[in-house]
Amino acid sequence: MKLITLTTDFGLQDPFVGIMKGVIYNINESANIVDITHNIDNQDILEGAFVISQSYRYFPKGTIHVVVVDPGVGSSRRPILVNASGHCFLGPDNGVLSFIIKEDPKPNILELTTEQYFLKGISSTFHGRDIFAPVAAWLSKGIEFHHFGHAISDYRKLDIPEIERGHGIIKGKVIYIDRFGNIITNITHEDIDDIVKSGISTSDIRTRIAEVEITGIKKYYAEVNKGEPGTIINSFGLFEIYTYMGDAAKMLNVKKGAPVEVI
Amino acid sequence: MKLITLTTDFGLQDPFVGIMKGVIYNINESANIVDITHNIDNQDILEGAFVISQSYRYFPKGTIHVVVVDPGVGSSRRPILVNASGHCFLGPDNGVLSFIIKEDPKPNILELTTEQYFLKGISSTFHGRDIFAPVAAWLSKGIEFHHFGHAISDYRKLDIPEIERGHGIIKGKVIYIDRFGNIITNITHEDIDDIVKSGISTSDIRTRIAEVEITGIKKYYAEVNKGEPGTIINSFGLFEIYTYMGDAAKMLNVKKGAPVEVI
Amino acid sequence: MKLITLTTDFGLQDPFVGIMKGVIYNINESANIVDITHNIDNQDILEGAFVISQSYRYFPKGTIHVVVVDPGVGSSRRPILVNASGHCFLGPDNGVLSFIIKEDPKPNILELTTEQYFLKGISSTFHGRDIFAPVAAWLSKGIEFHHFGHAISDYRKLDIPEIERGHGIIKGKVIYIDRFGNIITNITHEDIDDIVKSGISTSDIRTRIAEVEITGIKKYYAEVNKGEPGTIINSFGLFEIYTYMGDAAKMLNVKKGAPVEVI
Repeated sequence: MKLITLTTDFGLQDPFVGIMKGVIYNINESANIVDITHNIDNQDILEGAFVISQSYRYFPKGTIHVVVVDPGVGSSRRPILVNASGHCFLGPDNGVLSFIIKEDPKPNILELTTEQYFLKGISSTFHGRDIFAPVAAWLSKGIEFHHFGHAISDYRKLDIPEIERGHGIIKGKVIYIDRFGNIITNITHEDIDDIVKSGISTSDIRTRIAEVEITGIKKYYAEVNKGEPGTIINSFGLFEIYTYMGDAAKMLNVKKGAPVEVI
Repeated sequence: MKLITLTTDFGLQDPFVGIMKGVIYNINESANIVDITHNIDNQDILEGAFVISQSYRYFPKGTIHVVVVDPGVGSSRRPILVNASGHCFLGPDNGVLSFIIKEDPKPNILELTTEQYFLKGISSTFHGRDIFAPVAAWLSKGIEFHHFGHAISDYRKLDIPEIERGHGIIKGKVIYIDRFGNIITNITHEDIDDIVKSGISTSDIRTRIAEVEITGIKKYYAEVNKGEPGTIINSFGLFEIYTYMGDAAKMLNVKKGAPVEVI
Repeated sequence: MKLITLTTDFGLQDPFVGIMKGVIYNINESANIVDITHNIDNQDILEGAFVISQSYRYFPKGTIHVVVVDPGVGSSRRPILVNASGHCFLGPDNGVLSFIIKEDPKPNILELTTEQYFLKGISSTFHGRDIFAPVAAWLSKGIEFHHFGHAISDYRKLDIPEIERGHGIIKGKVIYIDRFGNIITNITHEDIDDIVKSGISTSDIRTRIAEVEITGIKKYYAEVNKGEPGTIINSFGLFEIYTYMGDAAKMLNVKKGAPVEVI
């Protein structure tokens, strides 16, 4: 029973995700399909790239991950298949798989061209159904990687927001806000470790965001009082601003892309 | 491993869908349950009928489709089981299965009356749990069709909004708006083909909706610029108005039922 | 194929639920994971306790239920494993499992301490991923109950809102509002039966909520006209106020905790 995960911006209102599953089961009834999320912000390729890169490692090696955030569907953008870090990934070549590819020193990338593994009569608006779902199903049935197309070496990269360092300050950005309103930044636990190694204790580290300054990094959420903000290294190993039993993003009126400084 | 799909207006906030799955697994632990959607607009029978009729064909023949949009639950409306186009369908006889039935020249329809296949102590508010889920589970275990009740020939039909033609104009209606704000109409690709056959090229076809006129039909979404409206034959084979990287329904302030003209 | 259900307040926007499933499949690829709901109101322990206590009984005996509504994650609150009413339950010891425990005269409760069944490098913010998911997976593989920790007898209880009776009146509270806007109270069908036994017929029973009085209890929703309020014993056996084809909670502007009187 081979695992196939789905990550899309299709939402759960429409039947799009159910239809993709139908296509997969029609080819391989013993596939095991798992939703990672279908609520990537509409056509937000960067968010899709972030979510799959944080999630895939928890699945067994050999899992097939279908990632469809695809505003260019039907245009000349290529559908690709990637073998990286022991997992397979399917999606459009628009950067949504670029974090995954970058992580592996020797990724295999293939443009999907073998139409016998696509649905007949491909639409120009729903390649999740017509290309990615059936290819995932055939892969899960054991068709070998190289049968699906031809190897390519170039691929579309995303501008990843990098942190800046200087004068004892780390300048980062908000890259994701979760359902609890936790504000996730591109500052990693290694970045924080560097500050600690330079002699500043975690209880003295200060964070500036949206004209608020928060002192100290907590070990768990409940270390601050209800409604108070705190900072923490979260479960992705990223630096996060939160409000205990509250919504930090709403409280601080912070959106994706907002600047964060750690001193 | 028999497939059972679920299409309801129960949403994903409450435990209703999880409970239906529990009931199914309690009868057949090896069932394979797939959600089509649980976000049909509350009690919108027409939307439920549209969604299942567009989705079922992507699943393997023999799949059991449970469709519960059921404002009349507990009243005299009948629970029915339909065998049509090689698939099985369960739902209330309120029209939600009528598109499916209409498509098959020789559908088998049965009123569910054999109470031994229902949960004991049927409620009057949740037949998804008490009737449709257990019958689906018993069907998936191989109990034959005719054991579940008695054949009927009448069934509740819905008023399907039909297009009007005249003076070189097709007058249609908006029948569905998806999560991206794409505006889906009841005008089909065959209707558009007829216009093309009459000598008008797709790039000259004009669409009027909400006091806006859009010229030409595109092949893929990205053919227009970001934020601009376009029209396209979508993945259901239906004529659709969209905004590239935007929300056409919000931009044009269009709701289900709104008129659309194609010239 | 062992069943594992998930009930959380993680929502479906973020990849948290998908990641928990990855962790489970990584340990037991033949697990069968069912979502009960992930839309428990953020950190609303009482709602989580209500939902799992109403849902678990529909699943087969032996099912493993993971319930994560966990504002105290990472603090000293204990992770527990409960064997009650023939099912297994995993969650934080914050009351979310207390209704389940209370129902069984001889529950087995265990504090999870055997770290070999946790993920390595436990975070302080996501025990759903690091503790509850892997323990559920190992349980589903047949590791025996007592291997996961040591028995405890105390556990955190919740203040359950109880009804008050007096002078022919039952005073209850709204405990849940579902997606249709149905207003669910803590008044049970037994409470209503008591009134009926005292000589008042169901058609004469009056309900006061939000300065509205509704007379009579209906058998099914469609007994009142569209847009009108009614009351009913719902599928959980609880007394409910509804509006036919409408949203009673919005119409009456009622929220969880609001008082209800039945006379």
